[in-house]
Amino acid sequence: MRTSKDYLAKLAAMRKNIYMDGEIIGRDDSRIVNASRAIQKTFDLAEDPKYKLTATSSISGSRISRFTHIHQNPEDLMAKQEMTRMMTSLVGGCIQRCMGTDVMNALSVTTKNIDIKYSTDYHERWKKYLAHFQENDLVGACAQTDPKGDRRFRPAEQPDPDQYLHVVERRPDGVVVRGAKLHNTMAPYADEIIVVPTRALRKDEKDYAIAFAIPADTEGVYLIGRSAYQHHREPNLEAPIAELGDVESFTVFDNVFVPNERIFVNGETEFGSEVAHLFALYHRHSYCGCKAGTGDVIMGTCALVADYLGIEKMDHVKEKLVEVISVAELVFSAGLAAAVKSKKAPSGTQVPDVVCCNVGRRHAGHNIYHEYNILCDLAGGIPATLPLSKEFNSPAVGDFVKKYIARREGVSPEDHYRAFHLASDVLTSEVATALQVAGVHGGGSPIMEDIAIMTFYNVEAKKDLAKYLAGIKKD
Amino acid sequence: MRTSKDYLAKLAAMRKNIYMDGEIIGRDDSRIVNASRAIQKTFDLAEDPKYKLTATSSISGSRISRFTHIHQNPEDLMAKQEMTRMMTSLVGGCIQRCMGTDVMNALSVTTKNIDIKYSTDYHERWKKYLAHFQENDLVGACAQTDPKGDRRFRPAEQPDPDQYLHVVERRPDGVVVRGAKLHNTMAPYADEIIVVPTRALRKDEKDYAIAFAIPADTEGVYLIGRSAYQHHREPNLEAPIAELGDVESFTVFDNVFVPNERIFVNGETEFGSEVAHLFALYHRHSYCGCKAGTGDVIMGTCALVADYLGIEKMDHVKEKLVEVISVAELVFSAGLAAAVKSKKAPSGTQVPDVVCCNVGRRHAGHNIYHEYNILCDLAGGIPATLPLSKEFNSPAVGDFVKKYIARREGVSPEDHYRAFHLASDVLTSEVATALQVAGVHGGGSPIMEDIAIMTFYNVEAKKDLAKYLAGIKKD
Amino acid sequence: MRTSKDYLAKLAAMRKNIYMDGEIIGRDDSRIVNASRAIQKTFDLAEDPKYKLTATSSISGSRISRFTHIHQNPEDLMAKQEMTRMMTSLVGGCIQRCMGTDVMNALSVTTKNIDIKYSTDYHERWKKYLAHFQENDLVGACAQTDPKGDRRFRPAEQPDPDQYLHVVERRPDGVVVRGAKLHNTMAPYADEIIVVPTRALRKDEKDYAIAFAIPADTEGVYLIGRSAYQHHREPNLEAPIAELGDVESFTVFDNVFVPNERIFVNGETEFGSEVAHLFALYHRHSYCGCKAGTGDVIMGTCALVADYLGIEKMDHVKEKLVEVISVAELVFSAGLAAAVKSKKAPSGTQVPDVVCCNVGRRHAGHNIYHEYNILCDLAGGIPATLPLSKEFNSPAVGDFVKKYIARREGVSPEDHYRAFHLASDVLTSEVATALQVAGVHGGGSPIMEDIAIMTFYNVEAKKDLAKYLAGIKKD
Amino acid sequence: MRTSKDYLAKLAAMRKNIYMDGEIIGRDDSRIVNASRAIQKTFDLAEDPKYKLTATSSISGSRISRFTHIHQNPEDLMAKQEMTRMMTSLVGGCIQRCMGTDVMNALSVTTKNIDIKYSTDYHERWKKYLAHFQENDLVGACAQTDPKGDRRFRPAEQPDPDQYLHVVERRPDGVVVRGAKLHNTMAPYADEIIVVPTRALRKDEKDYAIAFAIPADTEGVYLIGRSAYQHHREPNLEAPIAELGDVESFTVFDNVFVPNERIFVNGETEFGSEVAHLFALYHRHSYCGCKAGTGDVIMGTCALVADYLGIEKMDHVKEKLVEVISVAELVFSAGLAAAVKSKKAPSGTQVPDVVCCNVGRRHAGHNIYHEYNILCDLAGGIPATLPLSKEFNSPAVGDFVKKYIARREGVSPEDHYRAFHLASDVLTSEVATALQVAGVHGGGSPIMEDIAIMTFYNVEAKKDLAKYLAGIKKD
Repeated sequence: MRTSKDYLAKLAAMRKNIYMDGEIIGRDDSRIVNASRAIQKTFDLAEDPKYKLTATSSISGSRISRFTHIHQNPEDLMAKQEMTRMMTSLVGGCIQRCMGTDVMNALSVTTKNIDIKYSTDYHERWKKYLAHFQENDLVGACAQTDPKGDRRFRPAEQPDPDQYLHVVERRPDGVVVRGAKLHNTMAPYADEIIVVPTRALRKDEKDYAIAFAIPADTEGVYLIGRSAYQHHREPNLEAPIAELGDVESFTVFDNVFVPNERIFVNGETEFGSEVAHLFALYHRHSYCGCKAGTGDVIMGTCALVADYLGIEKMDHVKEKLVEVISVAELVFSAGLAAAVKSKKAPSGTQVPDVVCCNVGRRHAGHNIYHEYNILCDLAGGIPATLPLSKEFNSPAVGDFVKKYIARREGVSPEDHYRAFHLASDVLTSEVATALQVAGVHGGGSPIMEDIAIMTFYNVEAKKDLAKYLAGIKKD
Repeated sequence: MRTSKDYLAKLAAMRKNIYMDGEIIGRDDSRIVNASRAIQKTFDLAEDPKYKLTATSSISGSRISRFTHIHQNPEDLMAKQEMTRMMTSLVGGCIQRCMGTDVMNALSVTTKNIDIKYSTDYHERWKKYLAHFQENDLVGACAQTDPKGDRRFRPAEQPDPDQYLHVVERRPDGVVVRGAKLHNTMAPYADEIIVVPTRALRKDEKDYAIAFAIPADTEGVYLIGRSAYQHHREPNLEAPIAELGDVESFTVFDNVFVPNERIFVNGETEFGSEVAHLFALYHRHSYCGCKAGTGDVIMGTCALVADYLGIEKMDHVKEKLVEVISVAELVFSAGLAAAVKSKKAPSGTQVPDVVCCNVGRRHAGHNIYHEYNILCDLAGGIPATLPLSKEFNSPAVGDFVKKYIARREGVSPEDHYRAFHLASDVLTSEVATALQVAGVHGGGSPIMEDIAIMTFYNVEAKKDLAKYLAGIKKD
Repeated sequence: MRTSKDYLAKLAAMRKNIYMDGEIIGRDDSRIVNASRAIQKTFDLAEDPKYKLTATSSISGSRISRFTHIHQNPEDLMAKQEMTRMMTSLVGGCIQRCMGTDVMNALSVTTKNIDIKYSTDYHERWKKYLAHFQENDLVGACAQTDPKGDRRFRPAEQPDPDQYLHVVERRPDGVVVRGAKLHNTMAPYADEIIVVPTRALRKDEKDYAIAFAIPADTEGVYLIGRSAYQHHREPNLEAPIAELGDVESFTVFDNVFVPNERIFVNGETEFGSEVAHLFALYHRHSYCGCKAGTGDVIMGTCALVADYLGIEKMDHVKEKLVEVISVAELVFSAGLAAAVKSKKAPSGTQVPDVVCCNVGRRHAGHNIYHEYNILCDLAGGIPATLPLSKEFNSPAVGDFVKKYIARREGVSPEDHYRAFHLASDVLTSEVATALQVAGVHGGGSPIMEDIAIMTFYNVEAKKDLAKYLAGIKKD
Repeated sequence: MRTSKDYLAKLAAMRKNIYMDGEIIGRDDSRIVNASRAIQKTFDLAEDPKYKLTATSSISGSRISRFTHIHQNPEDLMAKQEMTRMMTSLVGGCIQRCMGTDVMNALSVTTKNIDIKYSTDYHERWKKYLAHFQENDLVGACAQTDPKGDRRFRPAEQPDPDQYLHVVERRPDGVVVRGAKLHNTMAPYADEIIVVPTRALRKDEKDYAIAFAIPADTEGVYLIGRSAYQHHREPNLEAPIAELGDVESFTVFDNVFVPNERIFVNGETEFGSEVAHLFALYHRHSYCGCKAGTGDVIMGTCALVADYLGIEKMDHVKEKLVEVISVAELVFSAGLAAAVKSKKAPSGTQVPDVVCCNVGRRHAGHNIYHEYNILCDLAGGIPATLPLSKEFNSPAVGDFVKKYIARREGVSPEDHYRAFHLASDVLTSEVATALQVAGVHGGGSPIMEDIAIMTFYNVEAKKDLAKYLAGIKKD
């Protein structure tokens, strides 16, 4: 397994293809290095068993990062969920590395399923890639969401055919693809980009049925970045929460060549929706851990601020804390139930229960703004109006800030300030807004979970129950 | 194990002490027999393995009803939850028999814990009672909620000391108790009444720290009944849903003698809250199965009505179905997670996780009216205005009812009528209102779950996380 | 103006055409007389100016019941709304007589609008009918909702053409109609039935574009009734809430002749949706008064029960009371704003603002189950388990009921019992369930208000605002 | 009336006492000038009658800015509400100037009420100040919220007595005050700071019962600023929304002298809560206009984005648009109803209805995060991941951005980009988070509205209604 130093060194050596703030920048740029801190933690803490960051490879038997592991049993799914919750809460937001894990698990299943149907060799190809991925302890960014153009039209009907990424040239040694993938969190500091289709496809949409993995600096790949950071802090007021950031990528594939050994779906249209669904499924299962972790951060911040304000014992405060707890624990329970009810795919991969994952992720997505609302309610106006750290340190007004920010005896002005600054970072920073949007749309928008549930739930069995209760004879 | 015939025969032989509709009635009265149909089903279907209605006794090794079983491992808790969901949906409402199961499990733990502390022999006493309970396949009603008088005062401070059931006389061979227990669903058709305290007690409230079990027709016990039935149906339109009913009891203990061998807590005030909490905990775990089952009934009715109305494919309809599914599946997941995280008590009994049970039950309680609202929304006005079965059968207007109740081709007028009548029974009958109230308060009112969560959740650990993220040094 | 005695006498003389409980009954049957009590109050209290029950006729200048009045200005609309709120709260539920008022106001506008377009004389016809309606102080039932058959088909496309009421024969002196109208609250104790279309119609659906008024006992009209009553009470425990009841009608028109002078729309398809919309609009405006009144009943019951239980000062109780208050006052405010923004139609009738009425009614409909939920939450299990009045009076157990139902000193057991019985009547009676369904669907289902809002709201103006803010040039 | 040039010139001439970003800055600093743009608009558009920005002074008869006007009748209250809605939507957020208006109206009432009770001359003093305020078309910042120290203690009990602003020295010509006021939006670009108490006071808290107005650059006043801006845009992509910003102030009063003629409450403790309540009341009434305007911005953005994405006609999209419309229109209706039910104070000032203002503001506060959630839901991930304007203009990747940001034919890539950038500004900018917090806490936190409603609502009348319905005799 790598160290974070190894990880950063490899990034630094990559071709510059990140475009941000009007510049082309390398991966050794401080904006990228800072944003990657959450991922660095997945290397730094690997040796601490508390975080469950390692697993035993199902192909090599070696000890590997759990972020590169293919889940083999319910316990693996539970361990991944717990790891995700702990790491998320530890970095105060999104741990970011799970996307690669989730898409690799999805591909493990689908490559095998295609081979079974078509006697192809995708699964072997993919296993070789997996060995490389695990040995080199790689970080993968999943690229799924196409721009989609006019939503009223299917991929092949778009006036601009590139609105969904597709094959534009087929060669003996591989394919050339064109298109773009949006909303790619952490792609600028991933080693690899792993591309899967975004939706179900029709027979005549073969060129859109393409899944593959390539290094993130491959020729023709453009990562158009947008960063979100916390409020700047003076050095004496640094804190773990202030280290959280991310860079999102609007990723363009401008005639990118993909060699055969890196292609995992190629024209098997009926498997386009399978792999899209499976990535979403694994990602929604990850969310059942990650959103519980986000809830812990919000809950802890609420409780700390309430404590310092001296309102912790008020009934309405307790009720609101319980509300945040309940969201986190229900979502986590759904993930756990998804592991208990999980099944093995032909590839040997453990697949979590669809309905449980979706009701869990859905509940998280429906409540994310509600949770922020509760923090806002309990913290009062201060997250939006707290003077920043230069004023805390100011010879002219610093003492005023310290005097009027203190609330409870027994807690220093600095600790009061730190607690309120945490509330501000969690609630009103650029990162906060990015996490809000991710909370709604990450792993699939709320409407997608409704669709998944209606697709996989046995509605007819419930209708049969109703018919039985009504005394209606079955046809 | 008994048959439902045995069960009814034993009821019929009991002393008449049910007061309802201005009369004293026996347990062979049709109002009681009809209300007990759900419980009869727990005997009738015992042999069908699908329903998981039997278990192996931990004391005798015999095959017994799971409703008399003491849970020994997580699988037992899961089996109980699944059984509860299936039986609840099968009877279209409350299966009713779980109360006795839940209080027996609670007593199994607390009797042992008292013995450990005080070297008493409650657990042995209770085990003898358990053997009797299992051998005779008994139905127990748990009686917990006292009238409470003026809520601003503690039990011992009430102007009328009987507002909480208490010991009024102590004899060598037992105690005499006085008081009342409210909201005792199915007590009029239970074999036994099992009494536990309703709340935490102080040292000086020894007389209120009393738990025991007695036959439901013991001298001095008055069961003041109130029934809830479905709308009357003509014989040709009978249906399983129409069989659902219940009789609630306002149970008075007017100087009732309880022999020593039936006393399981007696003056150990600190265990008053333990057993009260444990009964609530087991009951909330049951609710995680039962409310999922209730959800299945509502969901199935929604889906069937939507199908017959021809609106099943509309987006807003699908979204509402998903909402009902999500409530049921989240609640069920919480119960399942409670089993996964369960722990063994010193008595050997398996105790489900407190936080999971409470967030599950709380979610059910918060959403029960919301679920009925969705059924109301989808079914339209018809559940409140559907002509009753005499009009369906009427020579004068029956044809009109049939003509104008039909909606879709391919479904007979009678089946349309049956589906809408089901919706009416589920939504607008007396039973429906009883289930709504039970959905909010059964197993503990929503505020009680908030209290339980705040008591058992590790809020300090979350504050420590917040302090870490804020850079606040731990004291 | 009539007295309630006059009203009942006229009802008693009508042809028997109500079918209920397997019988044909007259309007002097106690089930009908009892159900009409709310309407009787509109006669009994007419002389008390507090209730604003009278107005000055715009056609005769006489003092008339406001329930027969055509609104002439914003003050009329406000007075109607206040009257509705007061009368609703006074009877503890639905005042029932507003339907006739609302449809007459709708017809006043549409008859004039048709005449303007087609030089017909509908408005004069209708004015003659109005004079008759006002002079005789009539009670009208509006019949709007057709069975609708298969919702996927339009009226003229239904396999059974009668699924929407329509003209089946045209004669020189009138038309013959066939069909049914559902959910007709109070039709069994109305003098007149006033029929309007239920939806927008196409040019080829002329026969469905029919509006008219006929006596409720006209040959060919069948009122298939379904009643909802409160729990039976012994005479010494009678109370105003116990008088509330209703009979719903499934109204069949089996080849009913309507004379020309009673026809107000006849084939002008484009006015079908106008009158349907206008009735809904006036009715939603009435709901802005009525649902505030229902809210008053729920709020008052909550506050009284909380007071008697001794929990009135608890924070969570106060918050819940505020929630009920807020729903009622927001809905009432919307109705008031609808009056302030109302406009005069060509007929001189004052028409309330569409958006205000719809957001008000929508808010009421979205919150009705939520309000019941709050009452359930605060009242505890007692509304479902309170022994009925025969047990309160029972020589055997009455003293137990009195002893254990008392809570607070200073309030008699009977008053406690009365308060809890009120909570039971409001929450768990058949009438309660009918009011819940009416709360969701009366005046139009929630989805209909969404449609009305999207139809009448100036969405383009908001998009233009967004374009301006975004710096997008207008095309 | 002044022009915005006059306004900025006067600001530029003021003493430098703003501390931000580690510097002392003047009011001609671009950060301050930019933040004041919303207020500049109140001068720039004064002549356009559409915006209702002027009124006739009740003291001078001159035409004045409505922002300096004392409301004389219901029409004034309605005009203020409409002006607030229009100006708020025009600037895309908070119009900021209403705080001064609201506190001046509150002082108009309380100064008169004190004089009536104590024969003082506060009202005359205040009227002189009003004349000055109106003649000079001043911008006032209301400073109300004290730090409050430990919430468990009253002002006079705080370990640090300065936690509530108070008089520390009394001189013949005035008083010296010390303390701080938090959350003072726009104080850095206001001419005057107007201070009122934050809560009810006891007899022994005379020094805390102080209200006054002083120039914002008075000796001893420190404005510790925190700014919130929109994402930076390149000049060719500027847009009105990008001009919105604000600077919040943590305002310290370090032994500030206030001359007698500027003191409006001084020791009359029982009027401390009156003026605090009245400011909150007027401000909540303003919110009934402003939150409707904010809703217009969110609604318009939702509708525009949905249009460009081609999803505008989908049912779930329409339902969400209706939800945002309903919040805005219900809140606005409540404000309108508050004007209709308003009453005249002894000073002649028109006072809006307490319950209506509070239910309106409460509904806005409860729904603000919900509205943002809807925008997030409809806009997808793009508000958080849209490349910023330098990338749009980039020679290297600008064409990719344009290609892949376009959705619908007929709308240019730039217009698509502008619409999505608007969504990003409204949802994920620093300003957005400030508006979220203001939406919850501005004008009083949700819990304060609950308290106001419970204080002023006639709960006893509702209990009497319940007693009547229950048949309980009034004592």
